Amino acid sequence: MDHLHEKTLNTKEIYKGRVIDLQVEEVELPNGKTSTREIVKHPGAVAILPITKQGKLVLVRQFRKALNKTIVEIPAGKLEAGENPSDSAKRELEEETGYKTDQLELLLSFYTSPGFADELIYLYWTDQLEKGFTNMDDDEFLDILEVTLEEAEQMIEDQMIHDAKTVYAVQYLKMRKWENR
Amino acid sequence: MDHLHEKTLNTKEIYKGRVIDLQVEEVELPNGKTSTREIVKHPGAVAILPITKQGKLVLVRQFRKALNKTIVEIPAGKLEAGENPSDSAKRELEEETGYKTDQLELLLSFYTSPGFADELIYLYWTDQLEKGFTNMDDDEFLDILEVTLEEAEQMIEDQMIHDAKTVYAVQYLKMRKWENR
Repeated sequence: MDHLHEKTLNTKEIYKGRVIDLQVEEVELPNGKTSTREIVKHPGAVAILPITKQGKLVLVRQFRKALNKTIVEIPAGKLEAGENPSDSAKRELEEETGYKTDQLELLLSFYTSPGFADELIYLYWTDQLEKGFTNMDDDEFLDILEVTLEEAEQMIEDQMIHDAKTVYAVQYLKMRKWENR
Repeated sequence: MDHLHEKTLNTKEIYKGRVIDLQVEEVELPNGKTSTREIVKHPGAVAILPITKQGKLVLVRQFRKALNKTIVEIPAGKLEAGENPSDSAKRELEEETGYKTDQLELLLSFYTSPGFADELIYLYWTDQLEKGFTNMDDDEFLDILEVTLEEAEQMIEDQMIHDAKTVYAVQYLKMRKWENR
């Protein structure tokens, strides 16, 4: 057993929602004392870094109620039950941007907030885009943008791009350009 | 008014916890229909990319109950009420790693999960470390590691490093080395 492990003594379900659930666990700490951990359960998500033939990034501008503001992000969406991440990424890409692809490459996955949530994001990229059809969710409204790497970097500077997956994706693309020079 | 804005019609407090609160908002969508948004309120956090004089990254290995596993991360912690992010970052760095510094540079800030949470992380870096004293929280247990950039990249490959802020920080450091070459 890992010497840092925390054993669950009991779990209290606080809330079951549309997107997230909340539970509070009483845990036994490595020193034998007890504490509580507040845990948000999330189905997981996919995000896609789509590059057009002109070398532009396809981004979406979206109101985020949690922040009470509109920010610009790479296309993303939560995993549906039983759906594999790659299929989910293709679906979300086309639904949100109107581009489709058969060639998605997984860059990596990462947890967004391991301190309080189990959300895991699978991040894909592609530069093989074809025209498809947008199809937003009933409660989803967004603008589609196509920007250069330099414009995306400026948007990070201006905090219009301001979330973890998108700053990672933009930095990845910058590094890729350096490596290919 | 932004054409994507969602107006709050009412807010229901579901839970007030030690670290996070949960509320559900009924919102009016841009098309006039209503929907609900589940929102986790978080005080915000700081994270630090500390580099030793030997060029190694200082990381912490920590059990994350939300994931039910131990992962390796850059030092981080949540903001205390009224504390400014830079002071918080210096405090967390010394408490968790035993290194202190007077020279922290803010790299950027980002939201971790804008779809359901307002957590904002301020990410700092420093290569000016002096010996200080660790001082863990009562319910905090961790191992301190010092690794090379190459070792950190392997840890990403092996998913021992598996969270957004740390993969971003390692990528930043890699890019910095490329740029200085």
